[in-house]
Amino acid sequence: MMPMAQALSVDGIETLNTAVAPGERRLAILGATGTIGRNTIDVISCFPDRFPVEVVTANRNAAQLAKLARAVGAKRAIVADDAAYAALKSYLAGSGIVPEAGAAAMCDAISAPVDTVMAGIVGTAGLETAYRAASSGMTLALANKECLVAAAPLFRAAAERSGASIVPIDSEHSAVFQALARAEPEMVESVTLTASGGPFRTWSRAQMATVTPRMAVQHPNWSMGAKISVDSATLMNKGLELIEAAALFPFAADRLSVLIHPQSIVHGLVGYRDGSVIAQLSAPDMRIPIAVGLAWPNRLDLPSKRLDLSDLARLDFDEPDRERFPALRLAESALAQGPLHCLVLNAANEVAVDHFLRAKLPFLKIAEVVAEVLERFDSGASIKDLSTISDVLNTDENVRKLAGDVCRRFLGA
Amino acid sequence: MMPMAQALSVDGIETLNTAVAPGERRLAILGATGTIGRNTIDVISCFPDRFPVEVVTANRNAAQLAKLARAVGAKRAIVADDAAYAALKSYLAGSGIVPEAGAAAMCDAISAPVDTVMAGIVGTAGLETAYRAASSGMTLALANKECLVAAAPLFRAAAERSGASIVPIDSEHSAVFQALARAEPEMVESVTLTASGGPFRTWSRAQMATVTPRMAVQHPNWSMGAKISVDSATLMNKGLELIEAAALFPFAADRLSVLIHPQSIVHGLVGYRDGSVIAQLSAPDMRIPIAVGLAWPNRLDLPSKRLDLSDLARLDFDEPDRERFPALRLAESALAQGPLHCLVLNAANEVAVDHFLRAKLPFLKIAEVVAEVLERFDSGASIKDLSTISDVLNTDENVRKLAGDVCRRFLGA
Repeated sequence: MMPMAQALSVDGIETLNTAVAPGERRLAILGATGTIGRNTIDVISCFPDRFPVEVVTANRNAAQLAKLARAVGAKRAIVADDAAYAALKSYLAGSGIVPEAGAAAMCDAISAPVDTVMAGIVGTAGLETAYRAASSGMTLALANKECLVAAAPLFRAAAERSGASIVPIDSEHSAVFQALARAEPEMVESVTLTASGGPFRTWSRAQMATVTPRMAVQHPNWSMGAKISVDSATLMNKGLELIEAAALFPFAADRLSVLIHPQSIVHGLVGYRDGSVIAQLSAPDMRIPIAVGLAWPNRLDLPSKRLDLSDLARLDFDEPDRERFPALRLAESALAQGPLHCLVLNAANEVAVDHFLRAKLPFLKIAEVVAEVLERFDSGASIKDLSTISDVLNTDENVRKLAGDVCRRFLGA
Repeated sequence: MMPMAQALSVDGIETLNTAVAPGERRLAILGATGTIGRNTIDVISCFPDRFPVEVVTANRNAAQLAKLARAVGAKRAIVADDAAYAALKSYLAGSGIVPEAGAAAMCDAISAPVDTVMAGIVGTAGLETAYRAASSGMTLALANKECLVAAAPLFRAAAERSGASIVPIDSEHSAVFQALARAEPEMVESVTLTASGGPFRTWSRAQMATVTPRMAVQHPNWSMGAKISVDSATLMNKGLELIEAAALFPFAADRLSVLIHPQSIVHGLVGYRDGSVIAQLSAPDMRIPIAVGLAWPNRLDLPSKRLDLSDLARLDFDEPDRERFPALRLAESALAQGPLHCLVLNAANEVAVDHFLRAKLPFLKIAEVVAEVLERFDSGASIKDLSTISDVLNTDENVRKLAGDVCRRFLGA
């Protein structure tokens, strides 16, 4: 069974190869003030004329958005939060950059003449705008993994209809994308995503019971947002990436696997049917997958940190431990069960992580909340049809309510 | 400076992509009784109708050649040594396989309808036949590294004239070939060949002074012929591979490097200008690069040993030590100086290794012989023109004489 056999990436790779001229690409940067957004701006600032920025967006940080918009010479800058409009307008005074605000403006952010959308908004908040990009035939450089976790069939269908290319920006999926190059799917035997194992890779469950938000957001190799750092610490991040890989690449779940690799140097591996394995490696630098996503099949001359294997001296590999990190098992099970379970897993996890970050849920309870929501939703849910983005968002909201209740009960207990 | 800028491989990759239909390929297997030959026969025996064997050749082992010729249903079998003809004829009696012998028959081995030549003859002995293949517009699957070390400019010119593709079979060059895929040369920043470091990787010079032929032919990861095993122990093998890489790929010597990697799992790496590195990995199994060479850009469904990184647990990397392994330094220096020095290095090394294997030269003297021959040849040589294969073979013979003299003097000393 290969439910996502006509997956995005293979079409994406084909389309991309023909669609991407080695010239200018006009960008919309969604989530410009976040980690992906700032790294994207860092990359394109090395190539001033090649990636003109049409629009940058942020949630509500008007000051930083205005600063970035000025730095890249964006034509428009949009805050999602209407309340930040006045501040944005004043920060942009005299710049010639048009300030905008609100949900409708965010949706319009990705209209022409944009041809490449860097979707760097974390969480379900990025869903609708990214979906619009996928529906518009643009190249969607996708750093938001929740799009494909919560709504893979919709994104796939939209991209197929519109001719959009979806290029992964997550380092692991970018690695697989590069290691696949232009290989035919039937030549591929296995796809492996590596996981650092997070800051608690070697910790016992008893030790993990003591984990605070501050401890969890210290990722050993990458500087990332708080939510992704926690997901990395529980291994839920890798579980979500597995689900995303199943949507991006035309391979059934049984060909996808996770490998613990503490140094985060090998990001992904593709095993071919002759026994040859192609891997992508690099120093941990998000600008590299961003540059690949922006330029593929070309490669930018990027001043990123270079890999020095003799300096690193060794690379370690291990199987993930699903007993100590049950979130990975939950994600693998959701992937096997289908898109609804993946959506539930993701929404419940977002709520649980949010509670954890606000010190309202112990670290080890994150996976327990997700497991309980999956179980309860399975038996009692009413909306199981996910044929529109509204269905997805409604179901997502229902799951969040349920997950909030479960978190509160855990807190009360 | 990039003296070999229009190198073989890039043309080869291009040509190959269009020339290779996913159908039958008619093979000539040169050196069928050697390691490469036997592994090739092992690979093609998994695909009985896909690789019909026109001809197999060997030096003088008539019994084994006849057995292999029968096993693969070859049309002709050739021994280089005329004295082995009678035996070959009798071993092939009743098989319908035509027995042949001698130098002229060897040259005719690669005539039509052969379209792919597996050149598995070790040493300069393989030069003339491989050159004929390169001149005939066939696909030359090249396991004989001496061809490119001794006569890179000639092979390149011949392949350019005839439209021949040269596909590397050495695991390291095959790795680079795969990691390059179809990338444009200007995107490539570095090419790295890995070296196991051989059986004496951690030995001091004093310890290496005690090395016997028997100790030197025990390679830790690969089962190879005696000559290559000794070259692997001195690191001359990696030096020759660097020279070969400079001929195969369109990159100047300053972009090529060697990395010690004791486990021989990562075979080669290509660093791109965005900081991304693509590597090829596999269990040490020569059938994999052979299968890549036979099928590229397709991949055969090969029952090779699969790579299990979590089982391996770790991979180590280190800089090569040119003090303990001066052969690598000599090769790097020869590469910098040009084709004549590469030829001299190779021929002197073959003679020195032969003396070592016959217990007529101490292990540490191999590099000393090569260094002295390089030095003497530099100051006194008459033939410096290498514009024909005859020039190459004449010069090679002169070097061998000189190297023999030097070996005898070392022995006498």
